[in-house]
Amino acid sequence: MTEDTEVRGSGWLSSDQLEGAREALPIVYVDVVPVRVDHTGTITHVGLLLRARPDGSISRAVVSGRVLYRERLRDALLRHIEKDLGPMAIPRLPTSPVPFTVAEYFPDPSVTGFHDPRQHAVSLAYVVPIDGEANVSGSALDLAWVTPEEATGPDVVFEMTGGQDRLVRLALAASGRLP
Amino acid sequence: MTEDTEVRGSGWLSSDQLEGAREALPIVYVDVVPVRVDHTGTITHVGLLLRARPDGSISRAVVSGRVLYRERLRDALLRHIEKDLGPMAIPRLPTSPVPFTVAEYFPDPSVTGFHDPRQHAVSLAYVVPIDGEANVSGSALDLAWVTPEEATGPDVVFEMTGGQDRLVRLALAASGRLP
Amino acid sequence: MTEDTEVRGSGWLSSDQLEGAREALPIVYVDVVPVRVDHTGTITHVGLLLRARPDGSISRAVVSGRVLYRERLRDALLRHIEKDLGPMAIPRLPTSPVPFTVAEYFPDPSVTGFHDPRQHAVSLAYVVPIDGEANVSGSALDLAWVTPEEATGPDVVFEMTGGQDRLVRLALAASGRLP
Amino acid sequence: MTEDTEVRGSGWLSSDQLEGAREALPIVYVDVVPVRVDHTGTITHVGLLLRARPDGSISRAVVSGRVLYRERLRDALLRHIEKDLGPMAIPRLPTSPVPFTVAEYFPDPSVTGFHDPRQHAVSLAYVVPIDGEANVSGSALDLAWVTPEEATGPDVVFEMTGGQDRLVRLALAASGRLP
Repeated sequence: MTEDTEVRGSGWLSSDQLEGAREALPIVYVDVVPVRVDHTGTITHVGLLLRARPDGSISRAVVSGRVLYRERLRDALLRHIEKDLGPMAIPRLPTSPVPFTVAEYFPDPSVTGFHDPRQHAVSLAYVVPIDGEANVSGSALDLAWVTPEEATGPDVVFEMTGGQDRLVRLALAASGRLP
Repeated sequence: MTEDTEVRGSGWLSSDQLEGAREALPIVYVDVVPVRVDHTGTITHVGLLLRARPDGSISRAVVSGRVLYRERLRDALLRHIEKDLGPMAIPRLPTSPVPFTVAEYFPDPSVTGFHDPRQHAVSLAYVVPIDGEANVSGSALDLAWVTPEEATGPDVVFEMTGGQDRLVRLALAASGRLP
Repeated sequence: MTEDTEVRGSGWLSSDQLEGAREALPIVYVDVVPVRVDHTGTITHVGLLLRARPDGSISRAVVSGRVLYRERLRDALLRHIEKDLGPMAIPRLPTSPVPFTVAEYFPDPSVTGFHDPRQHAVSLAYVVPIDGEANVSGSALDLAWVTPEEATGPDVVFEMTGGQDRLVRLALAASGRLP
Repeated sequence: MTEDTEVRGSGWLSSDQLEGAREALPIVYVDVVPVRVDHTGTITHVGLLLRARPDGSISRAVVSGRVLYRERLRDALLRHIEKDLGPMAIPRLPTSPVPFTVAEYFPDPSVTGFHDPRQHAVSLAYVVPIDGEANVSGSALDLAWVTPEEATGPDVVFEMTGGQDRLVRLALAASGRLP
């Protein structure tokens, strides 16, 4: 989960204030598992970003980010998808606001298995079919579309940290596509 | 729920045999609530068909029909959508096979409120966004796109029978769009 | 949504700090629609609290409250249920963390229809069957168990504000019990 | 999926008629993944039956069976749970009729991965917490309660056929407990 500093005037947080809030409150996030689907809605591929992590290592991750003050979830989803997949990606947001899972990220990795050293984040996770052209954008280094079998295979799982591999498995399971 | 007689050779039912099965087994159905959505996935309109009923009356209904032997649910959804909305309609089938509700239609209207005088049907109900052009097709007389407010208002509810009005309310509720 | 001031040392918010955060971040909440069910899991009654509101008026509401820093959702659910329904209530928490809806409360009532003048809250809403004895507790004035028909009828709806009546309808719809 | 012959008079099927229907219609089933939960609703154990299969082999399986004509899903769930886990098991049926997945069993194992050589079955699958005492009953040979880790481990998976291992993984995923 990455994010740019926001200082947009009244009601918005400075970098310092955001640090402070992160030590005192759970933060609202969205996770998006981008997928390609065929005409029957069946998932054919999962989109995984390649990201540099704060410790200098590199890992695979889904689209993710914070929900801003007075921002609707749907608008946060669109904003983060455009940020990571570029303006030519056409996301098909679900009609329902119900996530396929709620991932609770804790600074302590033993609580839920979802881990974020910076904060306690409560993340609503959605599967979003992407039409159009998705291009790596923002802070990601690469975007790869892999099959459900590849996404749950040992090679890719090895490149994911913080529970991202489990999030992808839960997304595929909710879609009936967990191998 | 309407449906044409099927006689496609071995493994398929004659009209008589289908009648027999309907007195002995629950029949698998799908219900589709067709919707128009904006770019954020929010439902703007619900599509309602105008159908002649066996008793000569006319009522509003959603897309509905039987799942055939050896037919996948996704294929049944596509087939019934094309039958009722025409070949120019582009349905965005959900990635998940999980319906927003399961409507149990009984010959006795008092059991669940979902009523079908011909049979006991177990219907998996889905909200399906429709792109492209939907045209009334098959046995329907008309197709109207109404707002969620209209779809749950007294005028439209009055034209729906067998629990179809409740099915539409459940679909809007699952999408967070029940007024 | 009500809540006591929390000052539990490092990492916790003073009343002032909580005020500050509420003007800069969406706050994570849980809503619980307490229900009585029969042995088939069918909802027979919905529990509604009677609460005094900040403006002195009185309204019906479901169980609701903030998720604390480093608190799991399941623990927040248990804490708020015990706070509002007393220690003799035995909640049957769902196995799944997936809420039946996500209610986005905004200071501006026109955004989603869910309204909280104090804050932007993102609330994960669950239906929770209650066994044992539920007694009004905490800051609530009364607890009434009403049928689904009563809970969605004009008398009760008239006593609910901020979108609580809609939340109850969505809960009943998700359970197939919306009249 | 096992089941006794039913001949209960008018409207019910003889063994021969059921065979005929199975070659012409999808059959409505329910699958139940029985679980033990702690007081927070977290799954601690999954119940797996040991069954003799028609070919003489032995395999692990969840509770499963047909929905009868004019039988509500909730009543079918209770009937099959009592049949397989005995009368002292106290199932906590979900308030919602929405299954965690829909398993489409085909005579051809390549269609969906869910396989039943006898029939095309459309099975609504539920996670059901069991209180009280569950005892092996009916046609099962044994009942074992295993942890989520064991239920998804190679030893147990090896003993499951027809896609039952995948069904258990989907159940655990829907509950946020897939390892």
